Amino acid sequence: MPNIAKPTLLLNKDICKANIHRMADKARAKNLAFKPHMKTHQSAEIGEWISDAGAEAVTVSSVAMAGYFVRHGWDNITIAFPVNLRQANEIDELAAKATINLLVNSPEAARTLDKALSHSVNAFIEIDTGSERSGIPSAHKTAVADLISTINKTAKLQWIGFYSHPGHSYQAGSEEEIIQIHNSVIEQFRALRQEFSSLSKRFEICVGDTPCCSAGTDFDGIDSISPGNFVFFDLMQHQIGSCKISDIAVAMACPVVDKYANRNELVIHGGAIHFSKEKLDEGPFTHYGKVASEKGAHWQIFDEESHLKSLSQEHGVVKCSSSLLKQYQIGDVITILPVHSCLTANLMGKYELSDGQVIRQFK
Amino acid sequence: MPNIAKPTLLLNKDICKANIHRMADKARAKNLAFKPHMKTHQSAEIGEWISDAGAEAVTVSSVAMAGYFVRHGWDNITIAFPVNLRQANEIDELAAKATINLLVNSPEAARTLDKALSHSVNAFIEIDTGSERSGIPSAHKTAVADLISTINKTAKLQWIGFYSHPGHSYQAGSEEEIIQIHNSVIEQFRALRQEFSSLSKRFEICVGDTPCCSAGTDFDGIDSISPGNFVFFDLMQHQIGSCKISDIAVAMACPVVDKYANRNELVIHGGAIHFSKEKLDEGPFTHYGKVASEKGAHWQIFDEESHLKSLSQEHGVVKCSSSLLKQYQIGDVITILPVHSCLTANLMGKYELSDGQVIRQFK
Repeated sequence: MPNIAKPTLLLNKDICKANIHRMADKARAKNLAFKPHMKTHQSAEIGEWISDAGAEAVTVSSVAMAGYFVRHGWDNITIAFPVNLRQANEIDELAAKATINLLVNSPEAARTLDKALSHSVNAFIEIDTGSERSGIPSAHKTAVADLISTINKTAKLQWIGFYSHPGHSYQAGSEEEIIQIHNSVIEQFRALRQEFSSLSKRFEICVGDTPCCSAGTDFDGIDSISPGNFVFFDLMQHQIGSCKISDIAVAMACPVVDKYANRNELVIHGGAIHFSKEKLDEGPFTHYGKVASEKGAHWQIFDEESHLKSLSQEHGVVKCSSSLLKQYQIGDVITILPVHSCLTANLMGKYELSDGQVIRQFK
Repeated sequence: MPNIAKPTLLLNKDICKANIHRMADKARAKNLAFKPHMKTHQSAEIGEWISDAGAEAVTVSSVAMAGYFVRHGWDNITIAFPVNLRQANEIDELAAKATINLLVNSPEAARTLDKALSHSVNAFIEIDTGSERSGIPSAHKTAVADLISTINKTAKLQWIGFYSHPGHSYQAGSEEEIIQIHNSVIEQFRALRQEFSSLSKRFEICVGDTPCCSAGTDFDGIDSISPGNFVFFDLMQHQIGSCKISDIAVAMACPVVDKYANRNELVIHGGAIHFSKEKLDEGPFTHYGKVASEKGAHWQIFDEESHLKSLSQEHGVVKCSSSLLKQYQIGDVITILPVHSCLTANLMGKYELSDGQVIRQFK
C-alpha cells in the first residue's frame, strides 16, 4: 500500500455492495420494505448503492443526519431515536421538505412536539422488545394504547406504527441465540398487532438490528427492516454470528512505527481516536481488532494469535505471532479488522477504495 | 441551558486557565521547561492560554497536529510519537518552518529518515520507563548508546535527549501509587543521565504524563515536562489521584429524550460518538460518566449513585438515584462529567464557553 501514510479506513466496494444486495434480496423475498439505517456509513455515495438495491426510504440516528440525506434526495426518513424535543425547529424544517418519521415514546413528547411543529410528521411508537434502552415495553399494552390515543389527538402527529431496535441481540454468542432473540421479538410484535388490529387503519411494524435481520428467517407480521451495520459488518458481528469474516467490508490500514521483538509486539499509528475503544472478549484475550491479510478479493484473519492488544490516543500495540513479527518491519503498513465498524467509521470520517477514490461522510 | 439542542461539550475557561497556570507555576518552581501536550485540547485558542502561562515550546501527538500549531505560530514542537517514516515528506516541510523534535527509537528509523529529509530535525530517544508501549527500556543501555551513535552519524538528525510517557501511571489507584511510579521514573532517568553524562554536550530529559506531573514532587534530573490531560482533567484522573473533581474543566450537556421511572433511568442524546467508549470501574459499577451539578463556579458529582450506565452510537442511558429522577424531565438538559476528556474532546471537536463563545479544534 504505497500511498498509505497515516491511519486509513479501507472500504472494499464489492463486498459492501454484495452485503447491501444480499439484505435487499432477503427483504424482497420476505416481502419486507427495506429501510436501511445510514448511521454506520453516513455517506450519500453509499446511500446511492443502497438506492440502486431498491431502497426507497431510509433510517438515521440524528436530525443532522436526516438533514444530510434529505439534501441528497431522500424523501422518506425515519429518525430512529427518541425524539429530541430541543430540536423541534430543525425537525419542522425537515418536515417541510420530506416525510419525516419520528419515535415518539411518551404523551409529554407528543404534546410538546405538537405545539412546536407547523408541519405534519409521522410518529412510530418505539417498543422495548428486551433491550431496555428506549421504548415502551411490549407488555405495557395500556401505555401503548394511551400513547396512540394521545398522538392521534394531536394536530401535527400521525401515528404510523411500531419501531424496535432489539439491541440485546448484540449480546448473543451464536446464530442460534440471535434466532431465539429474533423469534421472541417477532412474537411480541404479533401480540401487539393482534391487540391493536382493531384500530381502523393498517399500521407498520419496523425492526432494525443487523443480527436479527441477518440471521432471522421468520418475519411474519413484520412490515419493514432497518438494519445498519450489515453494509460493513465487523468482528463483533462475526462473533455474534451475523456474518462471515469474508463479509467484512472495511479494514484499517496503519503504518508500523516501532517493533519490539522481545515482547512480540509492533507499535502502529492507529489509536483510540481511529479505532474507538470498543473491545471484544475472545477466548484468551480482549482485543480492539485483529490483524488481517488478503485472500483473493476478501480479508481473512492473519492468525488467531495476532491482535490489537491496547490503544492510547494515537498508538496501537499489536501482539504478534512469530510469523507476523517476521513479516512486518518499521515503515510497513499493517491491516486490521475493526471490532465495531460503526464507531471506527464515525471516527475516520471517510473511506478509501482500492482505486484510490475517497468517499466522505456527512460531517 | 436554553441554547443546548444536542450533545455539547462545555468548557469552564476559568478552571482550565487555573489548571494551566498551576502546572506552569509548578514547572517554574521546579526549574522545568513547560512543554504542554496539545493532544487533549487540539485548539490554537487554548494554545494561547498556554502561551500566556509562559510555555515557549509544545508537544503534539501527530504530524498533522504539529502542522496546525506551526501555522499558529509555535516554532518548537515535539511530535511525541514514534516517528512515522511514511510521513517523512510532511515532517521535512515542517522542519523548514520550525524546530521539530521527533522520537526516534531504532537505528532503522534514524537511517531511513536521514535519507528522506532535506532539513535538520532534533531526535529524542524515547525511553520505556515501565509502560511497555513504545521506547527502549531504560535498562537497555547498550541499545541506547548504539542508537545515540547511529543518530549522531546521520547528516540531518541531531540527538537531543530522552523522552518518556510513563503511561503506566494511568493504572495507579491513588496519589501514593502515582508517586511511587513517578519516583521510579526519576530514578531510571538519573541512572541514564549518569551513564551518558560523559557525552560531550548537555542533553534534555522530558517526562510527559499528567498523573506524575500533577502528583510528583521530586523532578531532580528532569529538564522538561509535557503533560496534556491536565488542562481539562476528568473522572479517570480523579480516580487515579491527579486532581479534585472541582479541577475538571469540561462537561457534556445532553438533552434528556426519554424517562423510564420503573427502571430509574433517563435516556439522553449523548452516545459513544460523543463520549467515547472509555469506561471506569468504580465500586459497584462500571460507568461512562457521572452526572454533575453546579456548585459555585465548579462542577460537583450529583451523587454517587447516578451514572452513565451504557452507550450506543447516539443514546446514553443514565441510571438515576430517586432524587435525580425526580429532578429531570424529558426536554431538560443534563450535565455529565466525562471519563476521559481527551477522547470526548476529540469526538466533539469544539467547546462551548459559558458566554456562548465556541472554540474549535484543528480538524
